[in-house]
Amino acid sequence: MRKIVPCFFVFSLFVNVDLYGFHPNVAAAQTAPLPSPGMKVTQTNTALVLTDPQNDFLSPKGVAWNLVKDSVAENHTIENIELLLKTAKENKFKVFVSPHYYYPYDQKWMFGGAMEHLMHGIHMYQRKGPLSLEGFKGSGADFLDKYKPYIEDGQTVITSPHKIFGPEANDLVLQLRKQGITRVILAGMSGNLCIESHMRELIEQGFEVAVVHDATASAKINDLDGDKAAKINFRMIASASWSTNETIDKMKNS
Amino acid sequence: MRKIVPCFFVFSLFVNVDLYGFHPNVAAAQTAPLPSPGMKVTQTNTALVLTDPQNDFLSPKGVAWNLVKDSVAENHTIENIELLLKTAKENKFKVFVSPHYYYPYDQKWMFGGAMEHLMHGIHMYQRKGPLSLEGFKGSGADFLDKYKPYIEDGQTVITSPHKIFGPEANDLVLQLRKQGITRVILAGMSGNLCIESHMRELIEQGFEVAVVHDATASAKINDLDGDKAAKINFRMIASASWSTNETIDKMKNS
Amino acid sequence: MRKIVPCFFVFSLFVNVDLYGFHPNVAAAQTAPLPSPGMKVTQTNTALVLTDPQNDFLSPKGVAWNLVKDSVAENHTIENIELLLKTAKENKFKVFVSPHYYYPYDQKWMFGGAMEHLMHGIHMYQRKGPLSLEGFKGSGADFLDKYKPYIEDGQTVITSPHKIFGPEANDLVLQLRKQGITRVILAGMSGNLCIESHMRELIEQGFEVAVVHDATASAKINDLDGDKAAKINFRMIASASWSTNETIDKMKNS
Amino acid sequence: MRKIVPCFFVFSLFVNVDLYGFHPNVAAAQTAPLPSPGMKVTQTNTALVLTDPQNDFLSPKGVAWNLVKDSVAENHTIENIELLLKTAKENKFKVFVSPHYYYPYDQKWMFGGAMEHLMHGIHMYQRKGPLSLEGFKGSGADFLDKYKPYIEDGQTVITSPHKIFGPEANDLVLQLRKQGITRVILAGMSGNLCIESHMRELIEQGFEVAVVHDATASAKINDLDGDKAAKINFRMIASASWSTNETIDKMKNS
Repeated sequence: MRKIVPCFFVFSLFVNVDLYGFHPNVAAAQTAPLPSPGMKVTQTNTALVLTDPQNDFLSPKGVAWNLVKDSVAENHTIENIELLLKTAKENKFKVFVSPHYYYPYDQKWMFGGAMEHLMHGIHMYQRKGPLSLEGFKGSGADFLDKYKPYIEDGQTVITSPHKIFGPEANDLVLQLRKQGITRVILAGMSGNLCIESHMRELIEQGFEVAVVHDATASAKINDLDGDKAAKINFRMIASASWSTNETIDKMKNS
Repeated sequence: MRKIVPCFFVFSLFVNVDLYGFHPNVAAAQTAPLPSPGMKVTQTNTALVLTDPQNDFLSPKGVAWNLVKDSVAENHTIENIELLLKTAKENKFKVFVSPHYYYPYDQKWMFGGAMEHLMHGIHMYQRKGPLSLEGFKGSGADFLDKYKPYIEDGQTVITSPHKIFGPEANDLVLQLRKQGITRVILAGMSGNLCIESHMRELIEQGFEVAVVHDATASAKINDLDGDKAAKINFRMIASASWSTNETIDKMKNS
Repeated sequence: MRKIVPCFFVFSLFVNVDLYGFHPNVAAAQTAPLPSPGMKVTQTNTALVLTDPQNDFLSPKGVAWNLVKDSVAENHTIENIELLLKTAKENKFKVFVSPHYYYPYDQKWMFGGAMEHLMHGIHMYQRKGPLSLEGFKGSGADFLDKYKPYIEDGQTVITSPHKIFGPEANDLVLQLRKQGITRVILAGMSGNLCIESHMRELIEQGFEVAVVHDATASAKINDLDGDKAAKINFRMIASASWSTNETIDKMKNS
Repeated sequence: MRKIVPCFFVFSLFVNVDLYGFHPNVAAAQTAPLPSPGMKVTQTNTALVLTDPQNDFLSPKGVAWNLVKDSVAENHTIENIELLLKTAKENKFKVFVSPHYYYPYDQKWMFGGAMEHLMHGIHMYQRKGPLSLEGFKGSGADFLDKYKPYIEDGQTVITSPHKIFGPEANDLVLQLRKQGITRVILAGMSGNLCIESHMRELIEQGFEVAVVHDATASAKINDLDGDKAAKINFRMIASASWSTNETIDKMKNS
């Protein structure tokens, strides 16, 4: 590990740890605080990646609005995503959007998890087909109007749709690699589903990831608070979990 | 979707929903309860998959014991994992173990997330190398003694180690496919890290997944309760989130 | 292995092979013929997968026509692909198409292999963007007219585009799994590039794959004969390498 | 594309090509020679990756020796792999080995392709289990003795075994990324199987790959010449296909 030498690690040198054996004496380590590796933001190899900046989540007319509206309000998600887009463009960071679309044949899938059933049931992100844009403009699957000047500027890379929550079935990883990106600033919808699955997969693929914890929001349903789950896991798993303000500062000073 | 026709879906047929357009009238859908797709358990194509049933988590001498011991006690994790193993073997279910090992060169990785830093700092799951077993027996990387009769019976498939939290970098998916497995009962350590990353990746790879929510446990650190996060996400993402007792009943009656 | 007990394997039982040690006596095995595992074709879990049935390869106006036209003529590729489509539809086999599209930002990729450079140089499969169909109809990126009745029937699953040669960056694997498909009949363009990369990746993902060796064709360039390479590797790697006629018989009698 | 502006591309500017439409006038392009993108070799982010430098292929006692011995002799494979290892170590390049092992439960796989059946039939790369080294030393699964000083120096990363031909089911990609590697020099056994599947997968994952075409060798069986297929595909797909001498020069002058 390059940047972090946690204090418990230094301490453990004095208690005679056998490097690769069993460690009866490192109890001290186990109560040490969680490290904060951080992530260096550099314009050449860091990108902003947004998931699902689409009406079905972020417009009051969207089919999933009721599920996330409280969390969207608490985090100021809509404004924060726009701030990130604006800052990225002004400071020449590359931007990638990983959208979510479903086509009629996806409705025929033979099985799926709980939120998959819900999404298909309410026809979330629905399009007529991969080669049809009929009814797309302004639909729940379309981008929020206020983001379009940033996303549709001819520079932002719009990947193929992810189909469940992570980027395993689209070209996000390849697009990032083909542009020399090794570090990702991650934001968008929703927190404990698509953002978290993107975070986990990008890390497994060898990227450094910082999540912007208030430029996302999550469903609250059945007494389950997705935003709470997301924030715990962002902090434990990513290299950094930043606020929008912290992120903007880093992008401006990169 | 095969099994579930949520009531809000039936209802929505009467409120004139345009199937693939924008849906101003489906507000009712948005407050509907979360579907419970469930998962059929069949001995021929369902397997028990265990992650990290290793001393570093589950033995009081393990380097991560202090992080998870409260959650282990609350969930009765150690006993529940054993019950699952026993039931699986008695009822001829295939069992796969996805372990976690680190080798000296993994200590030289140039970056990583928060819990990765912690794990490397306390030398969790450490082995001398992929082709050395020196010091392995009884070490933190070894399996819990009470599970060995089940895991080392010559039938259980022990995959290559996963290297962060998910199975992206090992052969679990391939081993399952080569044995005709399409459904997974998932348990082991730890809940919001390896179990959840395995759940998410297996779902992205097209498996049906049921998680056993009390045959796992999670770290509590820095006021972050991993077990809470895990249980929210299991319920939202998997086909089912069962207790050990429910799971055992289904395996016995498959 | 389920179906095949190659004769050299049976023979080796008599020459006292130590099962997991070093095998000085199995020289006989090494000159045994290549096994032919074969693949069972069943309508419920076998699908036809086509790659790149697009004008840029298969129309005399296509930008890559000159590269492949000799091989297309030799294999009767255009007719054979149509025969497969027709037979699949008549016998209720699911059909999946994995197309190839490039967008303007793909032209900015920082590196690539030899044929990638060539494809980008001649603007193969070019579209204006993932959310634009301007100029698409009848272009090199569009499907061959004679295949459209089969591909655009509302039943055929058109996946997101693959971006290099394999399906690693699209949703083909997920779509197959979500439809219960475990066996793939593979055809389309071009043989040693996209077909072979799809064959290899699908096999790594745990599918059984049979390739239709004359319902594809390959580039001949710089004294390199792609068709020759493809046929060698189809035979060595897939479960079966069939002619179109053999394949049609199996689909009709499944 | 960064480095290459093929002459036919420049030419095409004068023949009024509509950038994203259909291109009736670029016939000239189609007969242009195959580009040679090349690959820059830099000690900080380029690694040597070797597949299967194991006895079963490279020792006269190995179970697959008869299949590859002619190609090994023609290419001077054994000496060339050693030259690459020596040069890499002397010039401080990182080295990664992706080995091939099979365990008893891999023999129970329910299906497989032609060469998979052959490999299982002759018990190639067989080990007693992932947590057993009994009988390993000097066996067909072990490394060639003359390579051991380089591979077992404590610096070379030995990944988990790949299980079919590519690195999809092991940790090679992650290990490379965690060490900051973006470019790969690829060599080892065998050419049209593991080397080619590694080449294809690494390229899909966004690496630049140069293959050393005479530091590998391939099976000749059933009138199929794997070496011929491999050399065609190396040239068409990789960024570069170099001889060992060319590669060594580049490593020395990086």
